[in-house]
Amino acid sequence: MSGVTLLGLVAAACTTASFVPQVLKAWRSGSSADLSLGMYGLFTLGIVLWLAYGLLIRDTPIIVANVVTLVLVLSILVHILRFGKPRPPAA
Amino acid sequence: MSGVTLLGLVAAACTTASFVPQVLKAWRSGSSADLSLGMYGLFTLGIVLWLAYGLLIRDTPIIVANVVTLVLVLSILVHILRFGKPRPPAA
Repeated sequence: MSGVTLLGLVAAACTTASFVPQVLKAWRSGSSADLSLGMYGLFTLGIVLWLAYGLLIRDTPIIVANVVTLVLVLSILVHILRFGKPRPPAA
Repeated sequence: MSGVTLLGLVAAACTTASFVPQVLKAWRSGSSADLSLGMYGLFTLGIVLWLAYGLLIRDTPIIVANVVTLVLVLSILVHILRFGKPRPPAA
């Protein structure tokens, strides 16, 4: 495995793993009012396109990263849709 | 420009642009308690590595996406560090 592919895999691991603390925080706190539905909706679409891109150019880091990221961001998207009602403005 | 590069640019545009609504939501609401510092710290590290990866393999979609994403996620990271104090648990 080349150094460049290893760099891509480490980059993929960081950006992919980074969603784990947000998934845990949302589901543990039961609160996702500050999370943007717009972000996670558009991000999910982008991840699907990145996955298609990675498959077309047969790039392992991009494929691996985006399969796992898709699962994680979908679980955040579900949380926002179910629990993400904006809080009433602070009095 | 090939169809594959176009797909990469559209994927890059989606995942990059997706952070704009989260930046706006955080700075407008002044609240980012639900956002995970762990996520945005690790995600920022990953974006720096993706940028290095893109530069090494000279991949336009990856380079463009990660330069812009870096600016956006840094602004969210700053917001979390300044305003992201966890809320007192609901009574």
